[in-house]
Amino acid sequence: MYLLIYGSAALALVTALIFAKKVLSHPIVGTPEEVRKFKEISGAIQEGALAFLSAEYKYVAYFCLAFSLIIYFALGHTNEGLNAGLYSSIAFLAGAFTSTIAAFLGMSIATKANVRTTIAARTGLAAAFEVAFSAGAVMGFGLCGLAIFGMLSICLLYTHLIANPLVAMEMVAGFGLGGSTVALFGRVGGGIFTKAADVGADLVGKVEAGIPEDDPRNPAVIADNVGDNVGDIAGMGADLFGSLAEATCAALVIGASAAAVVNYLPALYYPLLVSAIGVPVCLLTTFFAKVGENAASVEKTLKHQMLISTVVMTIAVYFLSQWALLDSFTLNEMIISRNGIMIALLSGLWGGLIIGYATEYYTSHSYQPVRKIADASQTGAATNIIYGISCGYQSVVIPALIVAFVVFLSWSNAGMYGIAMAAIGMISTIAVGLTIDAYGPVSDNAGGIAEMCGLEKVVRQRTDILDAAGNTTAAIGKGFAIGSAVLTGLALFAAFLTRSNITTLNLLSPTVFAGLLAGTVLPMLFTALTMRAVGSAAFAMIEEVRHQFRTIKGIMTGEGRPDYRRCVAISTRAALKEMIAPGILVLASPLVFGVCFGSEALAGMLAGSLAVGLVTAIASSNAGGAWDNAKKYIETGVYGGKGSETHKAAVIGDTVGDPLKDTSGPSLNILMKLMAILSLVFAPFIQSAHAWLLAALGF
Amino acid sequence: MYLLIYGSAALALVTALIFAKKVLSHPIVGTPEEVRKFKEISGAIQEGALAFLSAEYKYVAYFCLAFSLIIYFALGHTNEGLNAGLYSSIAFLAGAFTSTIAAFLGMSIATKANVRTTIAARTGLAAAFEVAFSAGAVMGFGLCGLAIFGMLSICLLYTHLIANPLVAMEMVAGFGLGGSTVALFGRVGGGIFTKAADVGADLVGKVEAGIPEDDPRNPAVIADNVGDNVGDIAGMGADLFGSLAEATCAALVIGASAAAVVNYLPALYYPLLVSAIGVPVCLLTTFFAKVGENAASVEKTLKHQMLISTVVMTIAVYFLSQWALLDSFTLNEMIISRNGIMIALLSGLWGGLIIGYATEYYTSHSYQPVRKIADASQTGAATNIIYGISCGYQSVVIPALIVAFVVFLSWSNAGMYGIAMAAIGMISTIAVGLTIDAYGPVSDNAGGIAEMCGLEKVVRQRTDILDAAGNTTAAIGKGFAIGSAVLTGLALFAAFLTRSNITTLNLLSPTVFAGLLAGTVLPMLFTALTMRAVGSAAFAMIEEVRHQFRTIKGIMTGEGRPDYRRCVAISTRAALKEMIAPGILVLASPLVFGVCFGSEALAGMLAGSLAVGLVTAIASSNAGGAWDNAKKYIETGVYGGKGSETHKAAVIGDTVGDPLKDTSGPSLNILMKLMAILSLVFAPFIQSAHAWLLAALGF
Repeated sequence: MYLLIYGSAALALVTALIFAKKVLSHPIVGTPEEVRKFKEISGAIQEGALAFLSAEYKYVAYFCLAFSLIIYFALGHTNEGLNAGLYSSIAFLAGAFTSTIAAFLGMSIATKANVRTTIAARTGLAAAFEVAFSAGAVMGFGLCGLAIFGMLSICLLYTHLIANPLVAMEMVAGFGLGGSTVALFGRVGGGIFTKAADVGADLVGKVEAGIPEDDPRNPAVIADNVGDNVGDIAGMGADLFGSLAEATCAALVIGASAAAVVNYLPALYYPLLVSAIGVPVCLLTTFFAKVGENAASVEKTLKHQMLISTVVMTIAVYFLSQWALLDSFTLNEMIISRNGIMIALLSGLWGGLIIGYATEYYTSHSYQPVRKIADASQTGAATNIIYGISCGYQSVVIPALIVAFVVFLSWSNAGMYGIAMAAIGMISTIAVGLTIDAYGPVSDNAGGIAEMCGLEKVVRQRTDILDAAGNTTAAIGKGFAIGSAVLTGLALFAAFLTRSNITTLNLLSPTVFAGLLAGTVLPMLFTALTMRAVGSAAFAMIEEVRHQFRTIKGIMTGEGRPDYRRCVAISTRAALKEMIAPGILVLASPLVFGVCFGSEALAGMLAGSLAVGLVTAIASSNAGGAWDNAKKYIETGVYGGKGSETHKAAVIGDTVGDPLKDTSGPSLNILMKLMAILSLVFAPFIQSAHAWLLAALGF
Repeated sequence: MYLLIYGSAALALVTALIFAKKVLSHPIVGTPEEVRKFKEISGAIQEGALAFLSAEYKYVAYFCLAFSLIIYFALGHTNEGLNAGLYSSIAFLAGAFTSTIAAFLGMSIATKANVRTTIAARTGLAAAFEVAFSAGAVMGFGLCGLAIFGMLSICLLYTHLIANPLVAMEMVAGFGLGGSTVALFGRVGGGIFTKAADVGADLVGKVEAGIPEDDPRNPAVIADNVGDNVGDIAGMGADLFGSLAEATCAALVIGASAAAVVNYLPALYYPLLVSAIGVPVCLLTTFFAKVGENAASVEKTLKHQMLISTVVMTIAVYFLSQWALLDSFTLNEMIISRNGIMIALLSGLWGGLIIGYATEYYTSHSYQPVRKIADASQTGAATNIIYGISCGYQSVVIPALIVAFVVFLSWSNAGMYGIAMAAIGMISTIAVGLTIDAYGPVSDNAGGIAEMCGLEKVVRQRTDILDAAGNTTAAIGKGFAIGSAVLTGLALFAAFLTRSNITTLNLLSPTVFAGLLAGTVLPMLFTALTMRAVGSAAFAMIEEVRHQFRTIKGIMTGEGRPDYRRCVAISTRAALKEMIAPGILVLASPLVFGVCFGSEALAGMLAGSLAVGLVTAIASSNAGGAWDNAKKYIETGVYGGKGSETHKAAVIGDTVGDPLKDTSGPSLNILMKLMAILSLVFAPFIQSAHAWLLAALGF
C-alpha cells in the first residue's frame, strides 16, 4: 500500500518533469532583435518574481523558525512523556518546506513558460495552449506529488516512532499547519503585491499618462506581470497545498481515533490513498486537453477537464473503497459504513463541480448576472457598483447551500470523519484543478510579453483568447478553493473538538454563542485590513511611477528605460509590511481567544468565522469576477464599447473588484483554515493555559 | 401595578399630545405669496405621504387578514383544547393595528411639523430646533404609549381568559408578530420608496438636468421629501415598535415558564414595568433638550439626550428592581437572582449607548475613518468605494463585540431570560431614541421646503445645521436599532427554543450545522434583492422624470408645473411591487425550512442568519453613513470642495451607500426579528407538520 502511495507520488513528479521538459523544449526563436527583447522582458519578470519570492521566503524562514520554537515550547511534553512540541514543530517545518518548494517550482516554470507561450502563439492557438497548459500541469502534478510524498513520509516516520497511532497523527497535523502558514504569506502577501501593482499600474498608466495596459513605458508593468505569478500561481498553489494537507491531517486524526481503523492500515491511510489515486485519474484527464484553432474550444476544453476528472474519479473511488475501506467501524458511538464514507467523499467531489459551475454562471459574461451589471453601467459607476455588490451577494446562495448540503450529507452518513472525507473529495482532483488555474496567469503573462515586445496583432489576439478562458477558470477555481477551505476548516474544527474531547457543543450556552458572535467579526476585520493594505501599497506604487515619469528623461518616447526593478522592490516591501496586521489577526485570535475563554468559546468563534467567512469570501470573489467580466463584455462593443462613459463606469467597478477578488476573498480561505488548524495543533496548550489562567484569576 | 403601567402609557400619550399641540401652535405665517407656497408644498408632501401610506396600508390590511387566517388554521387547537389559532391571530391583528396607528400618527405630525420648522428657522436656530424636536417627541412618546397600552391590555385579557399563564403569554407573542409584519412593509417598502425617489431624483435632476437638490422644477422632488417621512419616520417607528413588542413578548414567554415568577405579578410584568418606567425617565430627559444659536450645541444636545436618559434609566431600574423582582427564582435549572437580571438589563442599556458612540466614530466626519474615505476620493471613485467598504467592514468590530459581550454577560447572569432583558434594556429609552431619530427627517424636509419656497439663505443654513446633526443621530439610531434587533432576535430564538422544549442545541450535529450554514445565505440574498429593488424602482422613477422633462412645456423655466403626484404614485407602485420577493423570502424561509428539516435545523438556520445578519447590517449601514459624510466633508471645502473631481467621486460613493444604509441594512433588522418571532409563534405547527412530513415520507 505504501508502495502504491509512493508510486503515485513518483508518477506525479515524473509527469511534472515530462510537462516541464515539454515547456522547455520550445526554443526562444525570432529575429535577433526579437530574441533580445523576449529575453530581456521575460528575464525581468523572472527576476522580479524571484526577488519577491526570495524576500518573502526570507521572512517565511525567519517566521517559521520562530513559530516552530513557539510550538516546541507551547506544546512541550504530553502527560505520557512524549515530546509533542518537538514532533509537532518538525512536522510543521516539513510542511512549510514542502509547500515552499512546490510553489517555487510552479512559479519557476511559469516564468519560463510565459515567453514560450507568446512565441508559440505566433504559430497558432493550439500550440500556445499546449505550452501554457503544460506549464500549469507542472504546477498541478508537481505540487500534488510533493504533498503526497511529504505527508506519507512524515506519517510513516511518526507511526514508527510513536506507539499510539492517534498521537502520531496528532503530531502529523503540524504538517498541515506548516503548509497553511506558508499559504498565509503566499495568499495575503502575494495577493497584496499583485493587486497593488495592478491597481497602481492602472491608475497612473491608463488614467493619468493615458498609455495602454502592458505598455513597456509604464514602470509598474513588470511588477504587474510579476504579480500574476506570485499571487495567482505561488499564492493559489500554497492555498490548495494547505487545503490538501490540512484536510488529510484532519481525516487522519479523526480516523485514528477509531480502533478498528488503526488496525487496518489501508483504512487508516485511505485519505492519502484517495489523493494518490487522483494522480493517475488526473493524468488520464489531461490526455483530453486538446484544443482547435477556434476560441470556443479553449473554454470548453478547460471546463471539460473538470467534468472528466470528476467522472473518472467517481469510478476510481468506487473501486478503491471496495478494497481499502472496512465494511463498517464505530467512531464516537456512530457506526460508519463503507457506503457512508463513499457518499461523503463523492458529495464533496461533485459538490465542488457544482460550485464551480455556479461560480461560472455568476461571473461569466455569457449569462444574465454579469450582463445586468454591464447594463447598469449605462447610468454610471454608482449603479454599476450597486448591481455588482448585489450580484456578489446573490451568488452566495448556490455555493453556500451546496456546502450546507455536503456537510449534512457527509456528516450524517459518516460523522465527522465524513466531513474530512468530503473535503478530501472536493480537492481530490487538485492536479487538474491547479493545472487549469495556473494556466491562466501564464496566458496573461504571454499576452503582456506580446504587447511589450510589439509583436504582430494576431499573437495578442490569440493570447487574449487563452486569457479570457483563463479568467473563467480562475473564477471557477476560486469558488472551488473557497468551498474546499470551508470544508477543510470544518473538518479541522471537528478534529480539534475530537482532540479536545468535546462531543457536544451546546449552542445554547453563553460562552459558545458569544464566541460565535465574536467570531463573525474576524472575517470582516480581515477583509477590511487586506483591502486597505492593497490601497496603501497601491499608493506607494503610484508615487514611485509618478516619480519615474517625472525624473527619467525620455521615458514616454521610449528612449529612457523605466526602472522596473524599483517598482518590484516597492511592491515587495509594501506587501510584506502590509500583511503584518492581518497576519497577526489570524494567528493570534484563536490562541488568545482560546486561552482567555476556553475551548468551547473557541469552538463557537471558529463556527462564527466559518459562517461569515464562507459568505464573505464567495461574495467578494464573485463580485470581483463579475465586475471584471462586465467590463470585458462592454469591451466587446456593447453599450458603446471601449472608451465610452459606460466603459469608464465599468472600469471603476473592475478596480473596486480587484482587491476583493484577488486579495481579500482568497485570503479568507487562509483565515478559515489556519485558525482551525492552529486550534487543532495547539489544543492541549489552549486547554492547559486556560485552566492555568482560571486558577490564577482565582476561579 | 397595572395602574402604574397604564398610568405610564397615559403619561406617554399625554406627553405626545402636548408636544403635538406645541408643534401645531406655530402658525403658518409670511407674506400671502409665501403662505400660499408653504401650504402648496407642504400640502403636496402631506398628500404624497398619505397616498403612499394608504396604498401601503391597504396591502398591509389585506396581507394581515390573510396571514391571520393562516395563523388561525395553522395553529388550530392545542392538545388541551385551547383555540390557540384564534388567540394568536387576534393578538397578531392587535399588534399590527397598534403599530400602524403609531406610525401613522408620527408621520402625520411630521408632515405638519416640517413647514413649521422652516418658518421657525426664520426666527432662529433654537426655535426651529424646538419644533423639529417636538415633532420627534410626538412620535417617540406616542409610539411608546400605544405599545405599552396595547401589550398590557392583551396580556390582561389573555391571562384572564386562559388559565395557564405560560400559554397565555405564548398567545400574546402574536402581538409582536403583528408589529413585526407591519415593520416589514414599513422598512422594506418604505426603504425602497425613499431610496428610489432619492436616487432617481439625483440621477436625473443633479446629473442630467444640472439643477440643484430640492429644486421645485424636479418632478421627483416631492417624492424625495415624502420618502424621508415614509422611510425614516414610519419605517423606523415600525421597526422599533417591533423590537419593543417582540423583546417584551420574548421576556414574557420565558419568564412565564418559571412558576415563582408567575406567582408574583410584578416579576411577571417586569418587562412591561421597565418600559413603563422608561416613559418618565425620557420625559425628564427632554427637559434638557435646549439648544443655543450655534451649530455645535445642536449635535451636543442630541448626543447628551442619549447619555442623560441612560444614566437616569440606570438609577430608575435599580429602584424598580428592588421592588418588582424576586430575590431569586429557578428557570431551566438555573438560579436567577435580582442582581443577575439587573446586570442583564443594564448591560443592554449601556451596550446600546456604546454601540451608538462607536457608530458615530465610524460615520461622522469629525473622525479619521470618514476623512480617510474623503482622502481616498482624490484618486477617484474606485478608491473611494474601496475605502468605504473597508470602513464599513471595520466598523463591525466594536458593535459586534459589544453584542457578543452583552449576550455573554446577560446569558451567564440570568439565562435566556437575561437575553430578553438585555434587549429590553437596550430599547428601554426608546422614547428619547425615536425622538431624536424622527427629528432628523423633519429637519431634512424643512430644508427642502425652504429651498422650494425660495426663502432667504440663512433659513436653509439653519435647517442644514439641524439636518447635519440629524444625520449623525440617524447613524447612531441605526446602530442602536441593529443592536436591539440582534438581541431581540436572539431573545425570540431563546423563547422559540423554550417553547419547542429544546434545552441543548448541539452544534456538532449535521442538521444544526448544515442549518447554520444554510442560514448564512438569507441575509445575503435579502440584501441582494433589496439593493436591486431600489435599482429597479429608481429606474422607473428616472423614466418618469425624463418623460416629464420632455413632455411638460416650460418645466425648466418654472412656467410649467411638474406632475409631482405621478412620481409619488410610480415610486409607490414600484416599492410595493419590489418588496414582494424579499418579503416572501423572510416569511417563507423559517416555515418551509422548519417543516422540512425540523426545529433543530431551524434553530441552526436562525443562528446562522443572526450571525451574518448582524455583521452585514452594521457594515451596510455604516458604510453608507460614512460615504454620505465623506461627501459632506468634501463639501465643507476640503480637497477642492463641491464640483471638484474629488467631490464627484464622493457622490458616487454616496449613491452606492444610499440603498445600503436606508434600505438593505435596516431591512435586515426585520429579517432577524421576524424570522425568529415567526418561529416562536408557529413553533407547535412546525413541530407537528415536520412530524407529519417525516411520517408521510416513511421515516
